[in-house]
Amino acid sequence: MRHLLDTTDLTLEEIDDMIALATDIIENKQKYAHVCDGKKLATLFFEPSTRTRLSFEAAMYELGGNVLGFSSADSTSASKGETVEDTVRMVSNYADIIAMRHPLEGAPRVATTRTLVPIINAGDGGHAHPTQTLTDLLTIYREKGKLGDITIGLCGDLKFGRTVHSLIKAMCRYKNVKFVLIAPKELQVPDYIISDVLIPSGAEYVQVESLEDVMPTLDVLYMTRIQRERFFSEEEYLKHKDAYILDLKKLDNAKKDLTIMHPLPRVNEISTDVDDDPRAKYFEQALNGKYIRMALIMTLLKWGGNLEY
Amino acid sequence: MRHLLDTTDLTLEEIDDMIALATDIIENKQKYAHVCDGKKLATLFFEPSTRTRLSFEAAMYELGGNVLGFSSADSTSASKGETVEDTVRMVSNYADIIAMRHPLEGAPRVATTRTLVPIINAGDGGHAHPTQTLTDLLTIYREKGKLGDITIGLCGDLKFGRTVHSLIKAMCRYKNVKFVLIAPKELQVPDYIISDVLIPSGAEYVQVESLEDVMPTLDVLYMTRIQRERFFSEEEYLKHKDAYILDLKKLDNAKKDLTIMHPLPRVNEISTDVDDDPRAKYFEQALNGKYIRMALIMTLLKWGGNLEY
Amino acid sequence: MRHLLDTTDLTLEEIDDMIALATDIIENKQKYAHVCDGKKLATLFFEPSTRTRLSFEAAMYELGGNVLGFSSADSTSASKGETVEDTVRMVSNYADIIAMRHPLEGAPRVATTRTLVPIINAGDGGHAHPTQTLTDLLTIYREKGKLGDITIGLCGDLKFGRTVHSLIKAMCRYKNVKFVLIAPKELQVPDYIISDVLIPSGAEYVQVESLEDVMPTLDVLYMTRIQRERFFSEEEYLKHKDAYILDLKKLDNAKKDLTIMHPLPRVNEISTDVDDDPRAKYFEQALNGKYIRMALIMTLLKWGGNLEY
Repeated sequence: MRHLLDTTDLTLEEIDDMIALATDIIENKQKYAHVCDGKKLATLFFEPSTRTRLSFEAAMYELGGNVLGFSSADSTSASKGETVEDTVRMVSNYADIIAMRHPLEGAPRVATTRTLVPIINAGDGGHAHPTQTLTDLLTIYREKGKLGDITIGLCGDLKFGRTVHSLIKAMCRYKNVKFVLIAPKELQVPDYIISDVLIPSGAEYVQVESLEDVMPTLDVLYMTRIQRERFFSEEEYLKHKDAYILDLKKLDNAKKDLTIMHPLPRVNEISTDVDDDPRAKYFEQALNGKYIRMALIMTLLKWGGNLEY
Repeated sequence: MRHLLDTTDLTLEEIDDMIALATDIIENKQKYAHVCDGKKLATLFFEPSTRTRLSFEAAMYELGGNVLGFSSADSTSASKGETVEDTVRMVSNYADIIAMRHPLEGAPRVATTRTLVPIINAGDGGHAHPTQTLTDLLTIYREKGKLGDITIGLCGDLKFGRTVHSLIKAMCRYKNVKFVLIAPKELQVPDYIISDVLIPSGAEYVQVESLEDVMPTLDVLYMTRIQRERFFSEEEYLKHKDAYILDLKKLDNAKKDLTIMHPLPRVNEISTDVDDDPRAKYFEQALNGKYIRMALIMTLLKWGGNLEY
Repeated sequence: MRHLLDTTDLTLEEIDDMIALATDIIENKQKYAHVCDGKKLATLFFEPSTRTRLSFEAAMYELGGNVLGFSSADSTSASKGETVEDTVRMVSNYADIIAMRHPLEGAPRVATTRTLVPIINAGDGGHAHPTQTLTDLLTIYREKGKLGDITIGLCGDLKFGRTVHSLIKAMCRYKNVKFVLIAPKELQVPDYIISDVLIPSGAEYVQVESLEDVMPTLDVLYMTRIQRERFFSEEEYLKHKDAYILDLKKLDNAKKDLTIMHPLPRVNEISTDVDDDPRAKYFEQALNGKYIRMALIMTLLKWGGNLEY
């Protein structure tokens, strides 16, 4: 039995297999409509996340399974002092697989010590959110037909953005990926991403402040939100805020086959008039999230000896 | 693809068809038990409403489908500043049809601009609650065998009652419906209901204060709650409160085949001893709500090309 | 149609039958996987209880049925002043069976006056929690092969523990059960348990303060939590707290086939190193909770004429 705590738990081959399975699911939905008949997914969301929860639930239903769980910690035994291990041990009596979101880093790892069924980390604090990263990889693969030989721009809050850090870690395992890190200086990636991730991988990278300058070079543009409170001063905020809002004008000199991504929800960092541009792929990305989770559920159940396909 | 935002979106023929379908569902439940196998309803309740939500969920389950969603806005991305359009666009990746309740008038209409699947308005503020109105129409039809040639009394808070306004708009499209509007003067229907709805329709109507005086004339009595805080003064409240509470005594001179309705929940506006009177149909009305929602889900999926039956 | 409000609603034969059915379910899961196809369980939790709710949901899914409901009263019509009778009458239009948890004693009994479908009391305040008791009985039966001729120790807060009171009432109906009531004096069982339950039944019982002294005599040890605030003084708490924490050392002179039980959640009253001892059965107990609820749902549906098996 294996769990998914971080994307780096998976080998490149395993990721390739999961992407291939997701692709087959997309092309042959009916073939998978009863794969998980009689099986149950527990969604244990100690912290609310509607988007992630609904994509897991949709995934399990499309495999023929059922779903139980909770959507916030308010109503759980955690408030009675129960440990995460005990909660998960108990729930593993009631479900075949668990997707768990928790505000504390490492909580899903702790949960694996006692569970009887596979655990999927559906986000643990600022640490990891591997199903988002798998979603991003599937989206890039479906749009580009490959995960290497790509120039990917990451734009916005690169300092605090868990999603961005995970995606860099995942993408720098592929060949010839060039990273263009676009952010105001104070919101650039943390030093360890440079020293411990990018440099050891040998990947090419640049750090820039202007989105418009680098736009023509990008194959993929991954936007994230900059929260006002992240800036050191109101002056800095006012100076920068428009520079990191993507609108149709900034796309003027972009490649015709650029892929625009965003983990969602967005606030105003992508203007809604971009939504109708064929290069906007953030809603397709959300849809891919359902398919990669279907593939993941099937894979973990198979590894645990609880599913054959 | 069509949506249901207001009952007036539907022609009389379409309503007739939906009532006929609901009737067939009631009579042949097994025939419909797998109509929506593999399909998913999303219940997006930005405002809690247990009754409406459970009736939608029961409806979808009885058609063989599954349900996902949320029951209050607390745990949604709305709190992160996401627009309704984005939330609904995202969820439309995960479901085949959406039932949406929102505290703001017009929110479901806005949602239709980006969704990939049909939207059902499950109540938007004080504006519309079309599935309640369809429930009321089905109930009248099942009890009376017709929707015209009826004298219907509407009693209670006719000024603020969204349900009452919608029912008047729906019923005045039928022939020979006479409306008896029973309320204290300050809680009578708003002027526009008279000038823009009743008068143009040519329907007969009277406005009265006494429920007991008109009781013998009624074929249908639709009760609603009067909230204490709606009255201009405590004096007015004390003067009126008993006059609008239905009890067995007030039913003494009512027709033997009167149909007593209430959208529920009730507080004390219908005495519980009326519950055992065969004329009390408010719990049957709640049951009809399940069947008309089954018919509605099927109809919208069919119109959207996502279901054949 | 019958309901389950308290374990004492059931005859010993009926409990035996339910245990036999649960045992058959455990041994032949596939046989029951579609018994409740097309049926719906409503989980009406006016008070949160994740553990109990999830075990009911898992039970219904494993029978092939569906689940709808709510997990806390916040979002219900109760807040609009609706009575429990009306809520349950309404929900009984939407489900085939109802599991109801309510903070007020007697609420499930009130609910039975108007419901159209069987009601299961899933806990009503300090009063009864019969599915926990049935879970306990199934666990003892599976571990010991019998429900009589047993020495059972009940340890911890015996004064306020609803679970303990119900279990005593249930177990003293069997032959030759000896009760060892282990608690600090101020947290011993209420007088009525002695005078109205134990003495009339003729069961043997002792009241002791020391867990270690009686350990060698026990066939079953049922642990419960002592909440700090239950003690009369901080001094008392400090004096007693360690004496009622079960650890491996205290198990040194226990029987080799002791069965250690706990209704869960635990805080620290059982040391986690006991979890790996083969005598620890509290997580199996939680699993048994699912199976006895499957048997209960089937039995009540059958008694109501809504299921054949």
